[in-house]
Amino acid sequence: MSSAATTTTTTEDSTFSFKSYMHQKRNSVNQALDSAVSLKEPEIIHESMRYTLLAEGKRVFPIVCIAACELVGGNESTVMPAACAIEMIHAMSLIHDDLPSMDNDDFRRGKPTNHKVFGESIAILAGDALLALAFQHIANATIGVSPSKIVRIVGELAKAIGSEGGVAGQVMDITLTGVPGVGLEQLEYIHLHKTALLLEVSAVMGAILGGGSDEEVKYLRTFARSTGLLFQVVDDILDVTKSSEQLGKTAGKDLMTDKTTYPKLIGLDKSREFAEKLNREAKEQLSHFDTEKAAPLVSLANYILNRQN
Amino acid sequence: MSSAATTTTTTEDSTFSFKSYMHQKRNSVNQALDSAVSLKEPEIIHESMRYTLLAEGKRVFPIVCIAACELVGGNESTVMPAACAIEMIHAMSLIHDDLPSMDNDDFRRGKPTNHKVFGESIAILAGDALLALAFQHIANATIGVSPSKIVRIVGELAKAIGSEGGVAGQVMDITLTGVPGVGLEQLEYIHLHKTALLLEVSAVMGAILGGGSDEEVKYLRTFARSTGLLFQVVDDILDVTKSSEQLGKTAGKDLMTDKTTYPKLIGLDKSREFAEKLNREAKEQLSHFDTEKAAPLVSLANYILNRQN
Repeated sequence: MSSAATTTTTTEDSTFSFKSYMHQKRNSVNQALDSAVSLKEPEIIHESMRYTLLAEGKRVFPIVCIAACELVGGNESTVMPAACAIEMIHAMSLIHDDLPSMDNDDFRRGKPTNHKVFGESIAILAGDALLALAFQHIANATIGVSPSKIVRIVGELAKAIGSEGGVAGQVMDITLTGVPGVGLEQLEYIHLHKTALLLEVSAVMGAILGGGSDEEVKYLRTFARSTGLLFQVVDDILDVTKSSEQLGKTAGKDLMTDKTTYPKLIGLDKSREFAEKLNREAKEQLSHFDTEKAAPLVSLANYILNRQN
Repeated sequence: MSSAATTTTTTEDSTFSFKSYMHQKRNSVNQALDSAVSLKEPEIIHESMRYTLLAEGKRVFPIVCIAACELVGGNESTVMPAACAIEMIHAMSLIHDDLPSMDNDDFRRGKPTNHKVFGESIAILAGDALLALAFQHIANATIGVSPSKIVRIVGELAKAIGSEGGVAGQVMDITLTGVPGVGLEQLEYIHLHKTALLLEVSAVMGAILGGGSDEEVKYLRTFARSTGLLFQVVDDILDVTKSSEQLGKTAGKDLMTDKTTYPKLIGLDKSREFAEKLNREAKEQLSHFDTEKAAPLVSLANYILNRQN
């Protein structure tokens, strides 16, 4: 990846250890998730929910939620139920997207997908249950903020994942996969709706619960939207560069999948330029905040730009 | 059906026309549902959502929600978003339950099921989107009540449909279908979780939004739970009596399906006695309210006992 971006990281967070920050936040989130879904009856459905929810993951969505809350002056305990909810939604979308009638994936991060372990019907129901639990957890476990804020984040979260949000993205994805002539606008639509809106609502929920002003919520909304899009552009780039190593040539991967990607549409160099532009735009939004307090999110935007997997 | 129950109906609501009440409420609900899901982009997902949501139906869940609200002194406009939400959840569960990996039903009320029209992937996503929309609609469209009540009903609704509610019922249903030796306790678990809890939360949401006291909420909770169980017991009875007419003998239907039903476990007469007991228990809860105001729910409990389809 670009050395300019790496330098920026080092300069901007010289006094801040991103690695230990992520480690500590990931641990808190994992503990909270573990407590949020215990092995009640019927056991099989809770096992299925836990299988995907507690699988190894970056926890980028909940960490952005917590970081946004803390940036505007809130604290971790207030925002934790919402942070867990966003990871429940993320797990739900992974389970449903992997189903045979959707992307038909047998493995995710080297582990069999949920329906390969628990069967298709339980996997569908586990997704439904995680979706419901996200709202249950926000409504019942969020303490120390006004109910009007809770109502506001319920509305924001539901919109981000429904037929105008994540579902819309998945609909376009399955509708356009394999269709020739998919352009930049359609690709951005899919990435925006499938990923960026979920990261956006993570930041927005955190900012609202943390007591952020309308202006602050807006800055963090734009930050997370750009960062979410950045995440997908980098994903597309890694797809190509990883496959190049594995297959010896990019064309092989291109022929193997019908997925439209940024490198396919605008080339690898322009994709990297675009990623850097998104990273800059994201960080510009953070310039409205105290530099020290914004360090976690600045580092996160850089981490997402520079990540290798 | 028993003439005693019919007499009770006639006596208790002599000044109240249940037929016109249901007609008027069903129209209001249908109009509100139509407005709640418009044909936005991507069109196919909204078409799929509307296909099941706006299909002909009794609208028992939303009507119980509205009636409970009005019984405790609230008004229809306050509760309508929650009433629509419960029908969205009901439609979602129909769509997902009909899927090939679940009950594999090709028809529902004479119309092809959602996945037969739109394909399996869109049907799954339409269910997900309806689930999300239910919460979005409650959070964004409910006006005239304190946000703390909205938070409370979000928690109640989510619990009723999730891994301890509707999902648990469907898990037990698919796990136990075809398994020999299913007993009364398991049958009641399925009916309670798949149907009664949804009717219960309909009444509870209505009672909370209408400003009911804790006692009133409790009475209406118990009323709706008994009525929901009653609905399923009558369903089981109709299954047998309808099939008797169609097949000339009950045994044919018994052999055709592996489903455990009340008549199968305790016989037709005892099933009818049980239905009448549930109907009485439900109406006992309503004796705590003004007789005239309780007429719609009394009639509804009788209608569910005496319905022929």
